[in-house]
Amino acid sequence: MPASDTQALQLLLERYSLGGKDLAEPGPSEAQLRLITQAALRAPDHGDLSPFRLIVIEKNARNRLADLFESYARRHGKTEESCSIERSRALQVPVTIAIIARIDLSHPVVAAHEQWACVGGAITNILNALHMLGYAGKMLSGGKVRDQALIAAFCQPGETLVGWIVAGTPSRALRAKTSKPVDKILSWFAAD
Amino acid sequence: MPASDTQALQLLLERYSLGGKDLAEPGPSEAQLRLITQAALRAPDHGDLSPFRLIVIEKNARNRLADLFESYARRHGKTEESCSIERSRALQVPVTIAIIARIDLSHPVVAAHEQWACVGGAITNILNALHMLGYAGKMLSGGKVRDQALIAAFCQPGETLVGWIVAGTPSRALRAKTSKPVDKILSWFAAD
Repeated sequence: MPASDTQALQLLLERYSLGGKDLAEPGPSEAQLRLITQAALRAPDHGDLSPFRLIVIEKNARNRLADLFESYARRHGKTEESCSIERSRALQVPVTIAIIARIDLSHPVVAAHEQWACVGGAITNILNALHMLGYAGKMLSGGKVRDQALIAAFCQPGETLVGWIVAGTPSRALRAKTSKPVDKILSWFAAD
Repeated sequence: MPASDTQALQLLLERYSLGGKDLAEPGPSEAQLRLITQAALRAPDHGDLSPFRLIVIEKNARNRLADLFESYARRHGKTEESCSIERSRALQVPVTIAIIARIDLSHPVVAAHEQWACVGGAITNILNALHMLGYAGKMLSGGKVRDQALIAAFCQPGETLVGWIVAGTPSRALRAKTSKPVDKILSWFAAD
């Protein structure tokens, strides 16, 4: 096994999520975002449907996202402080990538759950690619993905707002992750 | 950006699927299957639910899978030749990994589609890890995942048989994959 492959696997095994408060400038460049999208498109995709698309929020567009987050907080009766925290959530992150699913519920061959699995593979490969490029990130969802104003800002009819990947340069050392036990997950099929 | 990272990203971008007829011995060892499972567990998993498990079919257990595949073909009125092809599908692959989803439809926080996305991330990272270890593989599903005898062989009540990842050593050179165009998938959020 070539050494580089062991190293690549190590990167895959050590990747973990960092949220907005641990992400600093710079975020991925446009050229890197295009590579990251290529990685997303390498997830297994039954029927070659590409059942997702990505919308990058960066630079000045973050103010528009901040307005949407703040308005969401206000409509949910949050305190002034919580509204301000929601605003800063959008502003502090160098690059946010909205994940939009395009699930064809009436596809004759590919079940909806297989399309969702492809969306999840894309999310995973985006996070893998960010990590391999020296960035960190985290997939976020929660109540905001069901907010009509946010859905209207990101989705066409029939699309689903899955959430956001926040991305940037890690502002603290990545801590070593303890490995999860595999024995609850992995078993062998008996010969008879 | 360290050179090893560029190489890792390249491995992610060049990974593609190879089916059973292009897979030779050996398949991944038990130690490697445990690493591959670790990679599966690094997919983003809202609520830390691990909504999947893996069952490895290798060595003599392949005969039991071959019996199940052949019986499926017979019950679907396939020709003798097709039944024999179904048998050999199970026997020719060094290692097959059944993917079983455990979706909690009544989870108070994590929507079913987020759990499916985690299953898809696990599948993607299994294929990534196989590629980085020098193996190849492919995710397969189709009519057999809805077969009651196969479901009974692999699933507990409430679980879903998602399909199988076939895995082994590539028996032909990996062809260069052309990059998919990203412009249909990737766009930028307007500032206003």
